[in-house]
Amino acid sequence: MNVLIVYAHPNPRSFNSVMRDVAVDRLTHAGHAVLVSDLYAMHFKATLDERDFKDRQEPDFFNPLIEQYHAALSGTFADDIAQEIKKVDWANLIIFQFPLWWLSFPAILKGWCDRVLANGIAVNLGTYDPLLAGKKGLCVVTTGAKEPMYTPEGPAGDINVLLTFARGMFATAGIEFLSPFIAYGVPTLTADEREALLERYRERLSLLKLAD
Amino acid sequence: MNVLIVYAHPNPRSFNSVMRDVAVDRLTHAGHAVLVSDLYAMHFKATLDERDFKDRQEPDFFNPLIEQYHAALSGTFADDIAQEIKKVDWANLIIFQFPLWWLSFPAILKGWCDRVLANGIAVNLGTYDPLLAGKKGLCVVTTGAKEPMYTPEGPAGDINVLLTFARGMFATAGIEFLSPFIAYGVPTLTADEREALLERYRERLSLLKLAD
Repeated sequence: MNVLIVYAHPNPRSFNSVMRDVAVDRLTHAGHAVLVSDLYAMHFKATLDERDFKDRQEPDFFNPLIEQYHAALSGTFADDIAQEIKKVDWANLIIFQFPLWWLSFPAILKGWCDRVLANGIAVNLGTYDPLLAGKKGLCVVTTGAKEPMYTPEGPAGDINVLLTFARGMFATAGIEFLSPFIAYGVPTLTADEREALLERYRERLSLLKLAD
Repeated sequence: MNVLIVYAHPNPRSFNSVMRDVAVDRLTHAGHAVLVSDLYAMHFKATLDERDFKDRQEPDFFNPLIEQYHAALSGTFADDIAQEIKKVDWANLIIFQFPLWWLSFPAILKGWCDRVLANGIAVNLGTYDPLLAGKKGLCVVTTGAKEPMYTPEGPAGDINVLLTFARGMFATAGIEFLSPFIAYGVPTLTADEREALLERYRERLSLLKLAD
């Protein structure tokens, strides 16, 4: 099976990068093909704008959804988007590896979704037909705060509620939303706790039914 | 009172821009001072990275939260961030005016939050002390789909659940989260319906207790 890891952390030696490498290693050894989109290393443009489109259906009035649909039909997305769309088409599983910033995606990852999971690519927003049915999606999240912060009783609330938008996005595109893997309180983990967490992640990766 | 409108739409003639202008007009006429941060017009950098910091506490290992706190204490944020922080300090009310993209903020607006509502500016992430207490925040949201899409029974789920992250962000910073103003199904509204919606928005703005 084919796995795309969309990785969004500015520090190439962060714990997020360790988790990314664990996934690449484990999945590759299990016989899967793995590609990584390292958004910071790619200097991925986060902001959807008119430069995303090589050709315009309505040159005088910029409606992002109309231009995305036109670009999807005519194959006229900007090159950086087109390359990511190819990876999405190729992938059976998409892993989002990111730190929780303000209870959500870092902007660069949100921008990848805004630009790549476009109208006409991920969903037809005219009919609401999902266009990526059969794929699976997994959010792998690190948090600065410890787990009690993200419980229903905690100050930030239930992390599963926070991730409602990601679940809804995947559902709209027809992508099966796998139970997220959350690494809580990363800054305060001991070396042993980090290794135990990584081992738990390896086990989770081994359990993924990628042949489904 | 002082109102900051953080505006995030790529088309300067979008319905979002009309709503922004309605707010500027109504609030100014009511005697309030209004500033607009037009993120697309400003080419606001969405991506938090090492360039956000003029001085580094840990030059060899980039931890965004540590560098934000250091920049907050030493006044060494990049100029674009420092200018936005001044506006936030000045404002009693912050309005986020944006289209709902993938059930959340456009990336450029998420990036404004990641970079401006920093550790040491909006919250102390060591103690979780909120640093913007006394301010109010209002999300003014346009959607492409009609209202039933965003009900608890609808495909996208309850819009109030979707906005949990924004509520949590404001709460963490001590900002009072006002009930969002949602303009549903904008692309399919008639001219009369748009005017009625704008009138409803004017009424909402008039009811804001900005003198509190």
